[in-house]
Amino acid sequence: MKWWGWGDPEKRNELGETAREMLRSELGAAEPTEVPPIESVSLPAPRELPNAVSQAVGPEAVVVADADRLLRAGGKSYPDLVRARSGAVEAAPDAVVLPSEAEEVASVLQACAVEGVAVVPFGGGTSVVGGVDPFVGSHRAVIALDLSRMNACEVDRTSLIARLGPGLRGPQAEAALAAEGLTLGHFPQSFEYATIGGFAATRSAGQASAGYGRFDDLVSSIEMATPSGPIRTLETRHTAAGPALRELIVGSEGTLGVITDVSVRVRTVPVTKRYEGWIAEDFEAGAEVIRTLAQDGALPDVTRLSDPEETRISLAMAGMEGLQRSAFETYLRLRKRAGGCMLITGWEGTAEDVERRRSISARILRNGGAVSLGQAPGKAWAHGRYEGPYLRDELMSLGYFVETLETSHTWARYHELYDAVRSGLRGALEAAGTPGIVMCHLSHAYADGASLYYTFIAPSVPGSEIEHWRAVKTAACEAIVATGGTITHHHAVGRDHAPYMQAEVGEVGLSALRALKEELDPGGIMNPGKLLTSVD
Amino acid sequence: MKWWGWGDPEKRNELGETAREMLRSELGAAEPTEVPPIESVSLPAPRELPNAVSQAVGPEAVVVADADRLLRAGGKSYPDLVRARSGAVEAAPDAVVLPSEAEEVASVLQACAVEGVAVVPFGGGTSVVGGVDPFVGSHRAVIALDLSRMNACEVDRTSLIARLGPGLRGPQAEAALAAEGLTLGHFPQSFEYATIGGFAATRSAGQASAGYGRFDDLVSSIEMATPSGPIRTLETRHTAAGPALRELIVGSEGTLGVITDVSVRVRTVPVTKRYEGWIAEDFEAGAEVIRTLAQDGALPDVTRLSDPEETRISLAMAGMEGLQRSAFETYLRLRKRAGGCMLITGWEGTAEDVERRRSISARILRNGGAVSLGQAPGKAWAHGRYEGPYLRDELMSLGYFVETLETSHTWARYHELYDAVRSGLRGALEAAGTPGIVMCHLSHAYADGASLYYTFIAPSVPGSEIEHWRAVKTAACEAIVATGGTITHHHAVGRDHAPYMQAEVGEVGLSALRALKEELDPGGIMNPGKLLTSVD
Repeated sequence: MKWWGWGDPEKRNELGETAREMLRSELGAAEPTEVPPIESVSLPAPRELPNAVSQAVGPEAVVVADADRLLRAGGKSYPDLVRARSGAVEAAPDAVVLPSEAEEVASVLQACAVEGVAVVPFGGGTSVVGGVDPFVGSHRAVIALDLSRMNACEVDRTSLIARLGPGLRGPQAEAALAAEGLTLGHFPQSFEYATIGGFAATRSAGQASAGYGRFDDLVSSIEMATPSGPIRTLETRHTAAGPALRELIVGSEGTLGVITDVSVRVRTVPVTKRYEGWIAEDFEAGAEVIRTLAQDGALPDVTRLSDPEETRISLAMAGMEGLQRSAFETYLRLRKRAGGCMLITGWEGTAEDVERRRSISARILRNGGAVSLGQAPGKAWAHGRYEGPYLRDELMSLGYFVETLETSHTWARYHELYDAVRSGLRGALEAAGTPGIVMCHLSHAYADGASLYYTFIAPSVPGSEIEHWRAVKTAACEAIVATGGTITHHHAVGRDHAPYMQAEVGEVGLSALRALKEELDPGGIMNPGKLLTSVD
Repeated sequence: MKWWGWGDPEKRNELGETAREMLRSELGAAEPTEVPPIESVSLPAPRELPNAVSQAVGPEAVVVADADRLLRAGGKSYPDLVRARSGAVEAAPDAVVLPSEAEEVASVLQACAVEGVAVVPFGGGTSVVGGVDPFVGSHRAVIALDLSRMNACEVDRTSLIARLGPGLRGPQAEAALAAEGLTLGHFPQSFEYATIGGFAATRSAGQASAGYGRFDDLVSSIEMATPSGPIRTLETRHTAAGPALRELIVGSEGTLGVITDVSVRVRTVPVTKRYEGWIAEDFEAGAEVIRTLAQDGALPDVTRLSDPEETRISLAMAGMEGLQRSAFETYLRLRKRAGGCMLITGWEGTAEDVERRRSISARILRNGGAVSLGQAPGKAWAHGRYEGPYLRDELMSLGYFVETLETSHTWARYHELYDAVRSGLRGALEAAGTPGIVMCHLSHAYADGASLYYTFIAPSVPGSEIEHWRAVKTAACEAIVATGGTITHHHAVGRDHAPYMQAEVGEVGLSALRALKEELDPGGIMNPGKLLTSVD
């Protein structure tokens, strides 16, 4: 993973000249930035780690080299990347500790609790909300507890449950399962790097979650090491025995303990995957047809509706140039869907099942005014499904501020939320003197509501990138809170959304969650400054 | 509701002579008991209620008549009914308080917290695990907080969400929804009396939960008044913002606060309901075919597989006499399914959808060796689906000890659990000198596991009914715990399962839940002696 951006350092997602020209014409000139050489990056000197901590796991499992510390100095949020690219990284873990089993995690937590060392559980490091930023708080040091060595996979074929180590990355987990003809079916945009433990800790939702379930739906049992001792839920999740402990561990973002084991539901690998493109008349009509699909039990496994702005920009960015693009536009005009909204649908399963479900969905889509574009746009989407973060790196290098955020609401208040957040974002970008492109898509639908995912691009403000980001982010969060949407549908809370937790769960709700933390982590060493406590 | 048993006092589910003869021949003679006249029932004198409590809700909403106190002196567990039928009721609430809105509930809780009065939230009073037993604990008095006046129903048709008052009984909620062409689809055996608040507080599962979802799956948002103040979750449940507060409120059984408002997913009323009977070769083969149905996404909305003992006894009890029964048995013998297991399946939805899903399920059932018995047994099951508790009253009057309990596990350990609990029950009944009938059915299936529901009947031990019950119940609970099953799949924890909560959630898990209670209910006034604390 790049220390200054996303993914494979050898891979780029370079923008074509047409796309760059479009950005210039939409946003004005931007000032390209250079990534400094790694040798020039300054990290704070590591604080000394108490002996008890390295003894807990063995000295060979404690790494203090700057390159290792730098890679765990943050996640992949815009502020994280701004800080990394600045070359002056102000906070880094004092050491990286790599346990290989749950008992070692427990020993490390014990030692850290006694010695007053903060612990940031670290999986893929893909958080986009500051979830792994290494705050030391009032403690004497802070470690990144890297779980990559905990990568077991054990399958119960009878129950179709796989017991997975928290450090398994998405592709590792899928490869281990594929060897048994199985799949987890969890494919968020961060799939290539994010881990099983991270999926559970953040309530991740994948692109095909309508078909396979959100990650929290997939967890059958879970184990967490806490400074107060281990918690393990029963093998079966189907119980009426009180408040669901599983649902306290899932979503706890490393602030209560370290997830050491996750058992998940798995399925037979689908034989057929079919992705298609459609054009809906407009965003409202598209959302309405998705609502019908969801409420009729006919939702495709993947559903993604872009608003007019995202449709326009993504067609332009996709590099549909010259004849091909103009032919496409003519086609849409002829069908009176110019200005319409791109809708991607996907079905996975047996050939027979995909065909049957597709034909039911297609009828509802056509009744709702959507026009089929065939499989090409669907295939293009599937091909590029993990490319977004690479594109962000390119845009940042070109001098743009680019960020995403997401929320959800009931269908009744969905459009109100859509308008409020869009206005909030546009207004804040304008107020900052950087009017930008604000795009949105609906990517997760349910019978009772759906998510909204915003992407916005504007010229960055060199030297004040984080203040600029904060002003815009705050406007969006306040619009979400004022409209009663959730502060996060699947990115989690981390550092960036922690100030909005009281709006999310209320004063008494927040006190209840904090009481839980006090019980499990009385020293407050677990992932300080995230979720239940906030810094800045 | 009868004060000494279940349901409508005017209604009986009298056993035919054949059934009675079969019980005598299986269990030996039993000593019939009489229900004492209500005038002879003694209740403890009510403790004085502090003025502040009645002021909180207004004196007209406080009832202290013995008849009202008696009806809330317990739920409908076997020990509850034994105590009621004994005529000497040792504990009753000192008053029944009937708030009409959430603000009044909050005021009552405030006053009770200040004055040291215990509060037992009371919905339908249908708990079979001692969930509403009126313990005063160390407090100066105990009230039953009866929620029957809080029975609003407000529908959001766009989102298909209904906001329901906690005091609505099942039929009231369904009637209000049916007026809009909608249904909640939640039909547990207690449906006729149980309430929305109770469904949420106990994580109820209905007979058609495979189709509609368990009650906890149906809750979109929820509000609870606690002594520390109100908690309300967001309108949307689709969020990644930390541990799920909703999942702490759901299942809290009145020990953290009073559920004052529940928003649930609703659906269009199904046009077609089709129930059928099948005979599986044996219990193992039947469970295996249900596993296939669940893992292939082809599970009927209702699935209920009786083990050989339940099949045999229910055919006998159902009163299939003379020619009809012998014809049925001949039919089974001819098809080589004598000694097989009865399987009920049900589908609900549009006619087209029911037909399509039924044909997929039927193919799998036949491949798994099940033989169709047509719709008659299905209709008979549907007709009698709420009759079990009436039958229990009859059996108790005939002098029998009759009780049910349930659990669940993964498919891999399902049969181990089945055998362990059955052996535990049979062993304990034999040890008590009362060998009995131990029957079981699988009634809730999932891709990863299923529930087991036991019913057992034996001669009662007059004068020592509760000790007898405790010995048998303990044997079953210990077998469940030793095998790693859950102590309850849908009956909840209440008083009876509270001693097993540590086995269920572990020592640290239990401390975490107790810390939560300490935060929300620092005085410990909420439903003492249930779930997180135990008496006896």
